[in-house]
Amino acid sequence: MSDGSRVIRCRQFRWSGIPLKQYKAESEAHRDVSRQTIMGEGEAEGALAFLTRYFEVQPGGHSTLEYHSHPHAVVILRGSGRVVLGDVVHEVQPYDCIYVAPEAVHQFQATGDEPLGFLCVVDRVRDRPTPVGTVRPPEGGGT
Amino acid sequence: MSDGSRVIRCRQFRWSGIPLKQYKAESEAHRDVSRQTIMGEGEAEGALAFLTRYFEVQPGGHSTLEYHSHPHAVVILRGSGRVVLGDVVHEVQPYDCIYVAPEAVHQFQATGDEPLGFLCVVDRVRDRPTPVGTVRPPEGGGT
Repeated sequence: MSDGSRVIRCRQFRWSGIPLKQYKAESEAHRDVSRQTIMGEGEAEGALAFLTRYFEVQPGGHSTLEYHSHPHAVVILRGSGRVVLGDVVHEVQPYDCIYVAPEAVHQFQATGDEPLGFLCVVDRVRDRPTPVGTVRPPEGGGT
Repeated sequence: MSDGSRVIRCRQFRWSGIPLKQYKAESEAHRDVSRQTIMGEGEAEGALAFLTRYFEVQPGGHSTLEYHSHPHAVVILRGSGRVVLGDVVHEVQPYDCIYVAPEAVHQFQATGDEPLGFLCVVDRVRDRPTPVGTVRPPEGGGT
């Protein structure tokens, strides 16, 4: 269709034409996580104010323990694992949803035998995460 | 957690504490569709600028053939069916994603033996759909 509408085919949690990327640059703070931004990246879907991303954490891996001011809307698609939300750890399984509030410290951990895969929708324009254990730099001229 | 972060448990495509609603008021234009707004509705998740909704179309049912100026980001979760995008009909299955561009005429049809279930993420603030076959009223003082 000329208006940009399209179907993005999925086979085994890989989407046609969508690059499989590293979650972030290599770091000690995370392990064995990949990222695919399925919808909203680039000009093709510029009308979307949010991005639909799929993350996959391999068994034994985990995302960075971090926080930021933008919220997350997460839907588990495959595998099982744990989600850290502040000082609480929750077991999760497919189709459980997780709302991560602004500034909440969070982490996703794959604790089962298969990868933990989940959708994570965020605002297109958003702040950068701060890993826990680091100090966020002051904004503007604040003291 | 006091900041509002939470896990919303899923059992058989029903989410804990989330009401199962009619898709829209009764009409001839759609058939056998339910709606659950999982994240973003109400003050609890007011930081989200978008809503994560789950629609389920029973076998033989369909959503309204319609268009609107806000885009959709759709992820199929269960069943199989067809998606109308303009003048093209696409077969879809779980995890296929569909980007519905602004003003694109679209419809979801459950053509298999089980319900067609899908996530549909939209902006919290958005325009109302216009069913195909009706004329959208002019905005403002347009002629």
